[in-house]
Amino acid sequence: MDYVYGPGRNHLFVPGPVNIPEQVIRAMNRNNEDYRAPAVPALTKTLLEDVKKIFKTTSGTPFLIPTTGTGAWESALTNTLSPGDRIVSFLIGQFSLLWIDQQQRLNFNVDVVESEWGQDHYQHPALFLVDGVSSICALDFRMDEWGIDVALTGSQKALSLPTGMGIVCASAKALKASKTAKSVRVFFDWNDYLKFYKLGTYWPYTPSIQLLYGLRAALDLIFEEGLDNVIARHARLGQATRLAVQAWGLKNCTQKEEWYSDTVTAVVVPSNIDSSEIVRRAWKRYNLSLGLGLNKVAGKVFRIGHLGHLNELQLLGCLAGVEMVLKDVGYPVKLGSGVAAASAYLQNSTPFIPSRI
Amino acid sequence: MDYVYGPGRNHLFVPGPVNIPEQVIRAMNRNNEDYRAPAVPALTKTLLEDVKKIFKTTSGTPFLIPTTGTGAWESALTNTLSPGDRIVSFLIGQFSLLWIDQQQRLNFNVDVVESEWGQDHYQHPALFLVDGVSSICALDFRMDEWGIDVALTGSQKALSLPTGMGIVCASAKALKASKTAKSVRVFFDWNDYLKFYKLGTYWPYTPSIQLLYGLRAALDLIFEEGLDNVIARHARLGQATRLAVQAWGLKNCTQKEEWYSDTVTAVVVPSNIDSSEIVRRAWKRYNLSLGLGLNKVAGKVFRIGHLGHLNELQLLGCLAGVEMVLKDVGYPVKLGSGVAAASAYLQNSTPFIPSRI
Amino acid sequence: MDYVYGPGRNHLFVPGPVNIPEQVIRAMNRNNEDYRAPAVPALTKTLLEDVKKIFKTTSGTPFLIPTTGTGAWESALTNTLSPGDRIVSFLIGQFSLLWIDQQQRLNFNVDVVESEWGQDHYQHPALFLVDGVSSICALDFRMDEWGIDVALTGSQKALSLPTGMGIVCASAKALKASKTAKSVRVFFDWNDYLKFYKLGTYWPYTPSIQLLYGLRAALDLIFEEGLDNVIARHARLGQATRLAVQAWGLKNCTQKEEWYSDTVTAVVVPSNIDSSEIVRRAWKRYNLSLGLGLNKVAGKVFRIGHLGHLNELQLLGCLAGVEMVLKDVGYPVKLGSGVAAASAYLQNSTPFIPSRI
Amino acid sequence: MDYVYGPGRNHLFVPGPVNIPEQVIRAMNRNNEDYRAPAVPALTKTLLEDVKKIFKTTSGTPFLIPTTGTGAWESALTNTLSPGDRIVSFLIGQFSLLWIDQQQRLNFNVDVVESEWGQDHYQHPALFLVDGVSSICALDFRMDEWGIDVALTGSQKALSLPTGMGIVCASAKALKASKTAKSVRVFFDWNDYLKFYKLGTYWPYTPSIQLLYGLRAALDLIFEEGLDNVIARHARLGQATRLAVQAWGLKNCTQKEEWYSDTVTAVVVPSNIDSSEIVRRAWKRYNLSLGLGLNKVAGKVFRIGHLGHLNELQLLGCLAGVEMVLKDVGYPVKLGSGVAAASAYLQNSTPFIPSRI
Repeated sequence: MDYVYGPGRNHLFVPGPVNIPEQVIRAMNRNNEDYRAPAVPALTKTLLEDVKKIFKTTSGTPFLIPTTGTGAWESALTNTLSPGDRIVSFLIGQFSLLWIDQQQRLNFNVDVVESEWGQDHYQHPALFLVDGVSSICALDFRMDEWGIDVALTGSQKALSLPTGMGIVCASAKALKASKTAKSVRVFFDWNDYLKFYKLGTYWPYTPSIQLLYGLRAALDLIFEEGLDNVIARHARLGQATRLAVQAWGLKNCTQKEEWYSDTVTAVVVPSNIDSSEIVRRAWKRYNLSLGLGLNKVAGKVFRIGHLGHLNELQLLGCLAGVEMVLKDVGYPVKLGSGVAAASAYLQNSTPFIPSRI
Repeated sequence: MDYVYGPGRNHLFVPGPVNIPEQVIRAMNRNNEDYRAPAVPALTKTLLEDVKKIFKTTSGTPFLIPTTGTGAWESALTNTLSPGDRIVSFLIGQFSLLWIDQQQRLNFNVDVVESEWGQDHYQHPALFLVDGVSSICALDFRMDEWGIDVALTGSQKALSLPTGMGIVCASAKALKASKTAKSVRVFFDWNDYLKFYKLGTYWPYTPSIQLLYGLRAALDLIFEEGLDNVIARHARLGQATRLAVQAWGLKNCTQKEEWYSDTVTAVVVPSNIDSSEIVRRAWKRYNLSLGLGLNKVAGKVFRIGHLGHLNELQLLGCLAGVEMVLKDVGYPVKLGSGVAAASAYLQNSTPFIPSRI
Repeated sequence: MDYVYGPGRNHLFVPGPVNIPEQVIRAMNRNNEDYRAPAVPALTKTLLEDVKKIFKTTSGTPFLIPTTGTGAWESALTNTLSPGDRIVSFLIGQFSLLWIDQQQRLNFNVDVVESEWGQDHYQHPALFLVDGVSSICALDFRMDEWGIDVALTGSQKALSLPTGMGIVCASAKALKASKTAKSVRVFFDWNDYLKFYKLGTYWPYTPSIQLLYGLRAALDLIFEEGLDNVIARHARLGQATRLAVQAWGLKNCTQKEEWYSDTVTAVVVPSNIDSSEIVRRAWKRYNLSLGLGLNKVAGKVFRIGHLGHLNELQLLGCLAGVEMVLKDVGYPVKLGSGVAAASAYLQNSTPFIPSRI
Repeated sequence: MDYVYGPGRNHLFVPGPVNIPEQVIRAMNRNNEDYRAPAVPALTKTLLEDVKKIFKTTSGTPFLIPTTGTGAWESALTNTLSPGDRIVSFLIGQFSLLWIDQQQRLNFNVDVVESEWGQDHYQHPALFLVDGVSSICALDFRMDEWGIDVALTGSQKALSLPTGMGIVCASAKALKASKTAKSVRVFFDWNDYLKFYKLGTYWPYTPSIQLLYGLRAALDLIFEEGLDNVIARHARLGQATRLAVQAWGLKNCTQKEEWYSDTVTAVVVPSNIDSSEIVRRAWKRYNLSLGLGLNKVAGKVFRIGHLGHLNELQLLGCLAGVEMVLKDVGYPVKLGSGVAAASAYLQNSTPFIPSRI
């Protein structure tokens, strides 16, 4: 079933879902299993232990919920808060908008802060909930050190798995809050999970066997590469992308350098060009999948996702493709200019692959 | 990563998750894709249309939710009811108990009817919600004809997929109720789906690409076999199993014939035997996965799941295994007796495989 | 592409190709690789070392040739013999007939011995070539101890891989013979392999990357189970099959007990029944693949292959299927009788799965 | 088992084995099957019919041999010639050298022509044998129109399959020659195949079930893209590569334009650089697999394979990688220059993907 076959690989550069390593695809290529037999709890135990490492927490309690990032958000909120509770939410892009919408629909009392993000915001006695969907396992993230109470991500982002697992990590303070939080929830209720953790069977309902083995393989690859090296690789690819954008004479949608993301770059196109046309042509002509601008930047930006299982030459292929599409739609780009700028940086900064030295 | 390798195939006879056809495993063996590119909506459109056939509805609206059966339940309840609404719930086994628990925790006003199930119950003006997790696509099920308002199943049951997709189908009356239902929900909110259905992009959040292609393959196989033939096959395997149980001199936990299930058989063991020991040995010695008795029948029954992608000889292999385990634990079974009874029935009733005649 | 879809698993009981373990299918689920990069020689080195263990040789030199068993035969002959050389060949079944045919067509001078096989035959100064296609890795086989000069097998037999790799092991004496053997050969020439062994690149032409990784996984599984346990399992399944045949009142085509094979059982059918009809119906009605009788026993016997990645309940499912087919074609079998006889033996002799104790 | 894990995809640009489409990997992800049951002959029939299309023959007879290109050569020679027969062989590169070596070792009487290749050579009454391993299914090739008697290719080249199938196509004249050719052969004997073709069972020995289904998928993709479009794509990628080489100031090892290959480009490096170091670094630092120079050009050239399942952005990623490696080893390349030259050409010449217009 391939409605839209094209020769060669699809170049997947949306900011999620991202490319799955062949090793993970292999690990998931399997029949179902009885999740009550000893093998699955034994596997789960290692996952719960190891997943904490990507949050940099030793004291947090992780939950692997069969859901998406949206569900992980809902789990974080409903387990820690009661209807009417006040939330101070920071508006910084489309997904914060969506999370705020969820917060309001779940009957919390939301104060939206449109001001700039800053470190000082987190000196407070309140519960500190962080949406790490696009950052955990790609950027420097330190749950314990930064005093975060609930952090969460989704399997289809930097972990490079299929969609379907929301990974939520709760501090002791968050767990305590869950004992009294009055938000109505069952599917997302951490206490159901905790009951089964205690029993050693781990699952209040059926998990995806395939995603469990996939997560095992994904974590193994991350630890083999080294989490710090993974983060450095994301920094390298992010910087290379930004240098290319600059070389094309285009603007990063993110205005301040300290806000740049190493997982996605939103590129502003000239006002006479429709960024959706860029995304459409990239896919139709070059088998390149770019991200659309969403909401108020629809038509004005396109996004290059550069997170997950990805390397330098994949990115350079994408950048070469973006150049051709820009030319296709009439933007006077100098072909090769972005690739040259990115390569100059990468040729200096890319380390040897450790296992091959 | 196989903690507990054993030679040969695992014989998976829990009542879910069930065996995945090789064709479906193949269809899911793929990289992620951009779900906003045209291919995924085109695929989704065919799925939403075709999935209605397994509910036998033409007027219902299906939702393919990245969740489990428990989540599908929650979706059915929170989209149609407001806190305090009265539910009449029928207590018929462990999973009805769990659903009732969910109903109570979601603050509905639940009347539990322990009396017998009967046809007359559904002559009423109330919304009619049916948990079809263990029956849809395996047993005769007719959403429209029976006036059902919400029916639901999970991917890992008769559809023979991995866990991770809750499939919910809502009547026009249920959809109307969802416009006014005051239960708090976001992740499970049908109205978010309907908004994207209208846009033709279908997904309020990221779906599992792999499960979409898997569902396509699963539906194709079901339609190739013929839904009526699938149901007849389940009836055949169910009856064969019950004949074996009888031949062993054991009792079906289900007491009345009209309640027999063609997807699972719970077998009562003599009081001097612990049914958990049967399940344990089956797995440890014969690579056979049977279901435990749950809750009040824990230790007293074991369950043979016979649903999903399964054929006669697989079942006979399982029955031969159960006989050996029964003997292992001291029950004086006549080896071969159950297989003989089941075979006598199957040898008479099994049709030729249509594609091979 | 499945011309002949049937519900449930195919029950594969031909004497090859046999069932592939899910672990091996996974290991082979991969893209091609540059076989001249360091990874492939590193992998090959472990394979050449470990494959010797299944021949029970320490001094032999193995060759992993991209061919079938027929090619492995040709490799054994053309590398050790010159046209006109005399071969004493033992005629013991269809495949010896085929090998003898090959020997004659390759211009050797073949003495066919139709007499009984016996131990004394191998006290001689001649080169001793053994076709182990259906025995190596399933039966007790000791290349060094028995003084064998060339032993060979194919990947699709007891190793439980896809077809495509002929595995040949040569003694020092055989290697020496290959230096002077005048038979014309290039593709099969061991000396081309030896040249690349010396270089450490191993391959005179392109190997199948997938089969190399598959062989790695297959060997890992065999060593995890323990080669002796693998052989014991084959003995157990062979004996169980023979007991079932006896219980059905049918004859084993192999007349003397010391000749019984633990990898395949050829069952003689009554003269009024066409064994091909049994094979045909098994496939058409029960999704069971049995082996045809070949050549002079065509129509008179059917074969049950019981080698490779297989366990007790798979075999019992097959035996139950054979019983039903026998009844289908009019043979007055008592349903359950063969399964009962086999189960009685297996219930006594099957060990616990070591990893699950 | 990944000895040398690196993040992101391997960029496979050796001239074979090449990248396998995900669709083909999926098709091969399966258990073994009984090749004597009706499904496999039915599949084989379609393959033998369809494979002729890639040779552009209607009268030829194809053989799908479980072997490599080297084996396909041997099949072509031994089936059509007798020892001592005269062969006029054209020496044009490393693989012709290897084939000539094979011809000599098979005891033919070989005249090696080192002169230039030209059209006039094929006006002759002799059998005309063509090694199309690196061209069939990638370049314009017309067996019937050009009067070719035996043409052959290997699965791991333009067909983009794993290694393991030699595909040989014989004209009526070649088949006739095979009736009298006295070269000794059994495994490669076409007459054994023809005997089974007549029986409708097709296989003289066990084929790889996985490669048969893989070939079916590969042919389906080629026909969906259109063979002419496949050839045009190879021409486009070949030209883009040559433009990049030129922009780098380097020389194509092939000296005359009419000899340029659209499947591989051998790049001559300056005499102070060791081309093996380029190949080594490409793999160690950028996960890029390039081809070594072989034999007399070892150390002097590296090769970029651009055949099989490949698209524009994959190639541009490779070219960007080559630029960085060239800089790594001290060659004063202008980063981005080759990509710019290739992009300028590709941006003009790449068609929309037909299924996506």
